[in-house]
Amino acid sequence: MSNIYAERIEALRALMRGRGWDAVIIGGSDPHQSEYPAERWKQVRWLTGFTGEAGDVVVTLDHAGLWTDTRYFIQAVEQLEGTGVVLHKTRVPEQVLIPEWLRSQFPDGAVVAVDSLCTASADADELRETFSLVGVPDLLSVLWEDRPDVPQTSIFRIQAGESREEKMEWLREEIAERGADAILLSALDEIAWVLNVRASDIEYNPMVISYLLVGQDFAKWFVLKEEVEDPITEETFEALQGDGIELLPYGEVGLELSSFEGRLWLDSATANCELREAASGPVIEAPSPVARRKEQKSPQEIEWMRECHIRDGVAMEKFLFWLEKSVEAGKRVTEWDAAVRLGQYRAEIEDYQGDSFETISAYGKGAALPHYITPRGEGAPVIEPRGLYLCDSGGQFLSGTTDITRTVPMGECTPEEIRDYTLVLKAHIGLATAVFPAGTPGCRIDAAARLPLWRNLMNFGHGTGHGVGFFLGVHEGPHQIRQNLDPTPMVEGMVSSDEPGIYREGKHGVRHENLVLTVDAGTSEFGHFLRFEPLTMCHFDTSILDLSLLDKWEIEWLNDYNRRVFDNLGTLLDEEVARWLKVKTSPIGLE
Amino acid sequence: MSNIYAERIEALRALMRGRGWDAVIIGGSDPHQSEYPAERWKQVRWLTGFTGEAGDVVVTLDHAGLWTDTRYFIQAVEQLEGTGVVLHKTRVPEQVLIPEWLRSQFPDGAVVAVDSLCTASADADELRETFSLVGVPDLLSVLWEDRPDVPQTSIFRIQAGESREEKMEWLREEIAERGADAILLSALDEIAWVLNVRASDIEYNPMVISYLLVGQDFAKWFVLKEEVEDPITEETFEALQGDGIELLPYGEVGLELSSFEGRLWLDSATANCELREAASGPVIEAPSPVARRKEQKSPQEIEWMRECHIRDGVAMEKFLFWLEKSVEAGKRVTEWDAAVRLGQYRAEIEDYQGDSFETISAYGKGAALPHYITPRGEGAPVIEPRGLYLCDSGGQFLSGTTDITRTVPMGECTPEEIRDYTLVLKAHIGLATAVFPAGTPGCRIDAAARLPLWRNLMNFGHGTGHGVGFFLGVHEGPHQIRQNLDPTPMVEGMVSSDEPGIYREGKHGVRHENLVLTVDAGTSEFGHFLRFEPLTMCHFDTSILDLSLLDKWEIEWLNDYNRRVFDNLGTLLDEEVARWLKVKTSPIGLE
Repeated sequence: MSNIYAERIEALRALMRGRGWDAVIIGGSDPHQSEYPAERWKQVRWLTGFTGEAGDVVVTLDHAGLWTDTRYFIQAVEQLEGTGVVLHKTRVPEQVLIPEWLRSQFPDGAVVAVDSLCTASADADELRETFSLVGVPDLLSVLWEDRPDVPQTSIFRIQAGESREEKMEWLREEIAERGADAILLSALDEIAWVLNVRASDIEYNPMVISYLLVGQDFAKWFVLKEEVEDPITEETFEALQGDGIELLPYGEVGLELSSFEGRLWLDSATANCELREAASGPVIEAPSPVARRKEQKSPQEIEWMRECHIRDGVAMEKFLFWLEKSVEAGKRVTEWDAAVRLGQYRAEIEDYQGDSFETISAYGKGAALPHYITPRGEGAPVIEPRGLYLCDSGGQFLSGTTDITRTVPMGECTPEEIRDYTLVLKAHIGLATAVFPAGTPGCRIDAAARLPLWRNLMNFGHGTGHGVGFFLGVHEGPHQIRQNLDPTPMVEGMVSSDEPGIYREGKHGVRHENLVLTVDAGTSEFGHFLRFEPLTMCHFDTSILDLSLLDKWEIEWLNDYNRRVFDNLGTLLDEEVARWLKVKTSPIGLE
Repeated sequence: MSNIYAERIEALRALMRGRGWDAVIIGGSDPHQSEYPAERWKQVRWLTGFTGEAGDVVVTLDHAGLWTDTRYFIQAVEQLEGTGVVLHKTRVPEQVLIPEWLRSQFPDGAVVAVDSLCTASADADELRETFSLVGVPDLLSVLWEDRPDVPQTSIFRIQAGESREEKMEWLREEIAERGADAILLSALDEIAWVLNVRASDIEYNPMVISYLLVGQDFAKWFVLKEEVEDPITEETFEALQGDGIELLPYGEVGLELSSFEGRLWLDSATANCELREAASGPVIEAPSPVARRKEQKSPQEIEWMRECHIRDGVAMEKFLFWLEKSVEAGKRVTEWDAAVRLGQYRAEIEDYQGDSFETISAYGKGAALPHYITPRGEGAPVIEPRGLYLCDSGGQFLSGTTDITRTVPMGECTPEEIRDYTLVLKAHIGLATAVFPAGTPGCRIDAAARLPLWRNLMNFGHGTGHGVGFFLGVHEGPHQIRQNLDPTPMVEGMVSSDEPGIYREGKHGVRHENLVLTVDAGTSEFGHFLRFEPLTMCHFDTSILDLSLLDKWEIEWLNDYNRRVFDNLGTLLDEEVARWLKVKTSPIGLE
């Protein structure tokens, strides 16, 4: 066989035989449990050719399998052809997950090898309950000859809501309260937040691949890779050293932990098992306090994010105007052309730092896939002057992170498209107008968006809302607004998405997404309540709404929101676009 | 000091000194973890005089404390006066629960004694983590001279949705699947359900105090107390013995377990620690399968419950007619008079077996207490011809269990009363009309009732819905519709209450409660959905509604529901009451 992936898997098996391993698990994450890994850690892709964002591989001496979910079934079948790798479906009722599958294959136990750098300590503990676990750092490196290095991009300081000193002081108080002597931060967004630095080590995610060890009288940043020849990075390093932060080689964190004798605070969900094993002193395993603090934006960050969303809205309105006029005029516009054009408008914004994720530009049936990947260049589908076009995109700015989805009619729509479009907007408004007691978990308000759909026997398979960072990850935990019974309380200052959708395979997809800020709604004799304020500033198209499906107060919310969009953006747009937006945002449903 | 409770506590302390106990915990439950215990197990009341439905007592050599929640603070302060017992508040932010409080008092550990019969095995395990635990069966009996015996009331068979044989067969399959040799059922409603028997051992709860041990080829019912001289019980016993069920003395269950060598399935949430300790063979601790099966009513039970609610509705309408006319005519009617009158109407129903809980008959500010206890006899407040009257009541029938709350205007109402009345009805309709995917947990649809209140900065402190048994407990788990993140899925055939409320201290209270049945709502490409069908048949008063607070579809639901009430009850009522109900149920909000 000449399939390159089949060859790589055979090479891995040769290694396994030599070492006496029964199975190897290769996951999709990096040593920091990042949602999106850098090239060096796209191990599943290197081994099998599968490029989906979620997937884990298990190789035994007579089987190779990829575990991935519903979103990637079609793609996996195509990409795995000829590799000998079998698709194991997850998020389906009959799923058999990796630990269970391994137990069925090796009822008497097995030696299972993992990359100890890319396996979270908590996951390793779970595997150890059943198997003899062997952890090997960089397990695939002996086979992967041209494996990319750990990336090193320019590291710059940012103006942040709170100073580095304030954050370090707070973190040291947390360490003392926990009864620890030091905390190891592994999650890249947590490190970037504490140090007020950013870089581009991972696409769309402006973070520095590094570890940070903080104690009461020291802070050690394991960040040094190849020699630094970049003046911005040098300046950053000097400033941090001036603040008493010691810079150390990225690869030496394990060594440091093995000689650290104090009580070490580790978050076993983000710390990898190589580091957990390296720690020689007593370990306190508990969630990092940074995640919870970080998702509560400071007043300064909130002010910047409001401004940032106005600038982002200008780019969106320019784009929607261009798209409507181009298609109306009979010009040939593909999904890819549209994505490129939107990127250009966004890049005109002064503090633009890149996109916050890969733009989903999807016309018609493409939009029925919530995680559609727009084909690059000439092969992309053409946007026709009928039906629905969906665009989900966002930017990274010094002043914040954006994430917006608009679905717009390109001409005549079917009754089903009109109904879906209207009901999803009703769902969006349901959550946007929700009021709830302070501290309510997101899973208890998820129904505010879903009930209008459920009442019509409709539903969507993804979450309604995810947290969003401040010039950080476009997905930020721990809070979430979705099905999972997660107890994380909603508090003031959180930024979340509100993005219900409806997807009809082979036909069309609708999603309406704003980012919303959690704000005070007032206090009564019944307690303190919170509500949402929309951050995203871009009109919702009202031209195809079926008003009979909306209640009066929903129409009022929509008119009010569109009016605010025009009030905020009107003067920032060219006269022609402003005139167009004035019409687009004129109130509807008035008797 | 001459306070009888203070004396009893001193007597307990003398016992403690003799035995070397540092603390004694006396809980409010019985050996079956019943929500409502029989007289014999009202130990907190005997020891302290406190009569609230929830409360635990801790006695040390120099302190005696009662732990109870917000509902009972005022009552506890009054009842504990002179006893020396200190109130410890629970369900408040600053609460210190019993285990934590004990740890603070005895940082070096302590000998803690509990009544091993009245302490759930799971709770004992938790205490054992910190303390040296001494379990004494009937701990207080040496002090409580005239302690009531274990009750024994007439035991009768019922026509049930499934035969005893079918239920036993199903249970034996469950036992086999679990890998057990036998299961011990402790929960009284589970035993009554399996055996298709009822009695009146506990007020409002038609159950038999007993244990049931079931294996593949035996079933042992520990039910015998004093000699049986009652022909109905004799007949029941003969029938069950004919079905191969062995009858044994109630007190011998421990002895039986100590000689049982097979694998014993225990539900540690309901089995007491005395029995857990008695078990000599291997024990499998897992939730009982009966609870989940029982809450899914059979088609026959559903048919009976629908009919039962029509008869109950007739009683309710007669009552509401009588009340309105009496107060209108200037007659003196107290809350107690009203409760008695309602009881009389309900007792006229042919298969009435008693009330399902103590009627809450509350006028004006009394209704602001969700668990108000109507004063008996002459001292009860008079119902005035203005403001709101609330009545929460229910019956036990051979054909099912009912639970209904109606709040009605007795004359002119304040704008606040009108608004609260309307918004609580909006909340009720929110849940009543909810549609949701099959398997959704109750906590994810609780917001359907709360959002209309939350949007007005209003909320209520109790759950929105509890399960209801079939001629069994008016509170039945495990499913619930409330704040707690409990994953129990909603399935077809469940009966729940839908009872939002608003309570304004010193002013008034509003609660609108129907029982609802979970039914199929249809299947679409997005999955299988469920909805609710109202079982309760009694009109909602529309005369004081503020229609501007209701959406059109909510008014339509209300008109439709009231029309169904009249259609079902009209022909069963006297002409005068029927005419009145026709007016009460005439549609509103029509242009």
